[in-house]
Amino acid sequence: MSPQGIPENGTVAEAGEFGLIRAITQGRRQPASTLLGPGDDAAIVAAPDSRVVATTDVLVQGVHFRLDWSSPEYVGRKAVAVNLADIAAMGATPTSVLVGLACPADTPASVITELTEGMWIEAARAGVGVVGGDMVRADQLVISITALGDLGGRAPVTRSGARPGDVVAVCGRLGWAAAGLAVLGRGFRSPVNVVNAQRCPEPPYEAGPKAADEGATSMIDVSDGLLADLGHIAEASDVGIDVETKRVAIPTRLAEVGSALGSDPLRWVLTGGEDHALAATFPSFVDLPEGWTRIGSVTMPGSGVTVDGKAYDQSGGWEHWR
Amino acid sequence: MSPQGIPENGTVAEAGEFGLIRAITQGRRQPASTLLGPGDDAAIVAAPDSRVVATTDVLVQGVHFRLDWSSPEYVGRKAVAVNLADIAAMGATPTSVLVGLACPADTPASVITELTEGMWIEAARAGVGVVGGDMVRADQLVISITALGDLGGRAPVTRSGARPGDVVAVCGRLGWAAAGLAVLGRGFRSPVNVVNAQRCPEPPYEAGPKAADEGATSMIDVSDGLLADLGHIAEASDVGIDVETKRVAIPTRLAEVGSALGSDPLRWVLTGGEDHALAATFPSFVDLPEGWTRIGSVTMPGSGVTVDGKAYDQSGGWEHWR
Repeated sequence: MSPQGIPENGTVAEAGEFGLIRAITQGRRQPASTLLGPGDDAAIVAAPDSRVVATTDVLVQGVHFRLDWSSPEYVGRKAVAVNLADIAAMGATPTSVLVGLACPADTPASVITELTEGMWIEAARAGVGVVGGDMVRADQLVISITALGDLGGRAPVTRSGARPGDVVAVCGRLGWAAAGLAVLGRGFRSPVNVVNAQRCPEPPYEAGPKAADEGATSMIDVSDGLLADLGHIAEASDVGIDVETKRVAIPTRLAEVGSALGSDPLRWVLTGGEDHALAATFPSFVDLPEGWTRIGSVTMPGSGVTVDGKAYDQSGGWEHWR
Repeated sequence: MSPQGIPENGTVAEAGEFGLIRAITQGRRQPASTLLGPGDDAAIVAAPDSRVVATTDVLVQGVHFRLDWSSPEYVGRKAVAVNLADIAAMGATPTSVLVGLACPADTPASVITELTEGMWIEAARAGVGVVGGDMVRADQLVISITALGDLGGRAPVTRSGARPGDVVAVCGRLGWAAAGLAVLGRGFRSPVNVVNAQRCPEPPYEAGPKAADEGATSMIDVSDGLLADLGHIAEASDVGIDVETKRVAIPTRLAEVGSALGSDPLRWVLTGGEDHALAATFPSFVDLPEGWTRIGSVTMPGSGVTVDGKAYDQSGGWEHWR
C-alpha cells in the first residue's frame, strides 16, 4: 500500500471509487473561501460579492492532451488553469474548482493521483480550493472542471464593451503553446520551456481583476488564438480590431524555434491557442496596468479583425469537430 | 436547415461547435438569478446568501444511461435532475447549471439538441438557469453537469448532524428506478411509469429547503440506494440507523412488477439507486414536513445501518469500477 492507502501499481478499479476519493482529498488544505469541502452532497463556497462567476471546460485525452507528450500532473494543472483563466477574464478572482473525472477501469490509480496532484498544485498557485467532484467509469479519460469566482464588487468585464478608439492590449504569453505543439509534433522534447508551455499554460490570473479595476472595456481569455479571440470581442462589441505587428514582440526563443522548424513564429503568436493570455480593450487615455502591452486598436465596425489594416491570410482558431 | 439553423439529419461536425451552441442557447428564457448567461468567458449567477452551494456529476453513455433504453431528452433531464437533487439535499434552492458535453464527431446533431432540450425542460421545472457550458469531441457521449444553489440564509444540512434518537424519514420515490431497470433488462418497455422512473428521476427539490427549515439534522440525496446512502449519514454522523420495514410502503405498482418478474420489491426500495429521493433525520419531537415519511430511527454508533434491527443480507449500493 502507498502512503495514501491505495495499492501501488494498482488500477482505479482496484483502488475503488471511495478509496481513490479519500486518497485524493485527505489532508488537503483549503483556502478560507471553502466553507464546506468535498465529502457531502455538495460543497459550499463563500460568495462575498453576492454574485458568483462560473465557467466549465472539458478536456479529453487524445483531443486536448496526450499523456505521451505531457504528464498526468501537467494535464491536471492545465485542466484547472484553463478554467481559472476564464474567471480572470471576467475581472473576477477565482475561488474554487469542482472536478469531474471519467476514466477506464484499468487506468493506473497513479495516473489519477498524479493528475489530481497537478490540480491541487495549480489551485494552490491561484489560492483556490478544490471543493468537490465526481469520478466515474468511461472508455476514455475525460476531465471536466468547473471554476467559480468572485467579482469583489467589480462590474464584470464582458466581450461586448469594446468601443472604437479603445486600445487593444494583452497580458501573458502568446504563441508558446503552439510552438510547443510544433516541437512535440516533430518528435522533439526540447526546448523545455517551449514544450512545457504546451503542457500547461501560465495564465496571469491577477491581471484580470487588475484590468477590470483600471477600466478595461472588454476582456477575453486567449484560448482559441489571438485573432480568433479578438474576433469574438469584435463580434460581441460590434467593432473592428486592428493588430499592429510592429507592436507584437516575438520572443527570442520562439524566433529560434521557428527558424529551426521553418515556421513563422508570428503565426504562432497571432493564431496559436492554449496559452490563455488575457486580451482586453481599454479607453485610450488609460495607463495600461503593469504587465499589459498594447498591440493594436479598436476600429469602426465592418472590417472584423485585421493585421496591419489587412485581413490575415493564415487566420486560425480552434473549433471542435471541424 | 432546421428552424434552429442547423442542418437536418446532420452530425455535430456538420453543425459545427458554434452553430450548435447557438441552436442550443438562442432565445432561451433565463430566471432572474441568471445575471449573465451563456456566450462570454464565464456566467454570472446571483448568490444572495453570500455563499454558493456547488456540486458536479458526470454521466457516461453505456454506464449511466443507454440511448436504446431512454431518449436524449430523458437523459438530458436526468443529468440535470441528479445534480439539482444534490443541491436540495443541502437544504438549498438550486439556481443554475453549467453543462459540459463531450461526444463523437458523427453524433447526430439532433441527439445533442434533444439532450439539451431535456436539460432546459428540467431546469425550467426547477426554476434554474442553464448558464454556461462547453462542447468538445470525444469517443463516447459524456455529460458533465455542475449545479449551483443558494441557502437563503439557512444553515446547510450536511450528512454529519444525525443524533441517536432522531427520526429517519424520506421524501420522494424509492425503488422505482431499480424496478424500471429490471423491466428494461428483461426486454420490456412497460409499465410506462416504472420505465420512465429509470429514464429520469423526479426528485422533490422543494422538500430539501423545507426539511432544513423544519430542523432536519442531516440529509442526503438517495443516489446509490437507500441503505447505502443512510450508511453515508451513519458514517459521517458516527451513529447507527435502523430502518423498520413495516414503515416502508411498497407501492402497488412495484409489488405487481416484482411479482411478475419474480423479484422482491422491498429490495428495490432498500437498495435501488437513481430515484434521488431525499433521506433526512429530524429530532423526534418535530412534526415531519408534508411529503416526508418516517421509516426508522437513529441509533447508537456501532451497528451501522440495520433493517428491523438486523444486517440486511442483500445490501447494495453503487460503487464505480467495481
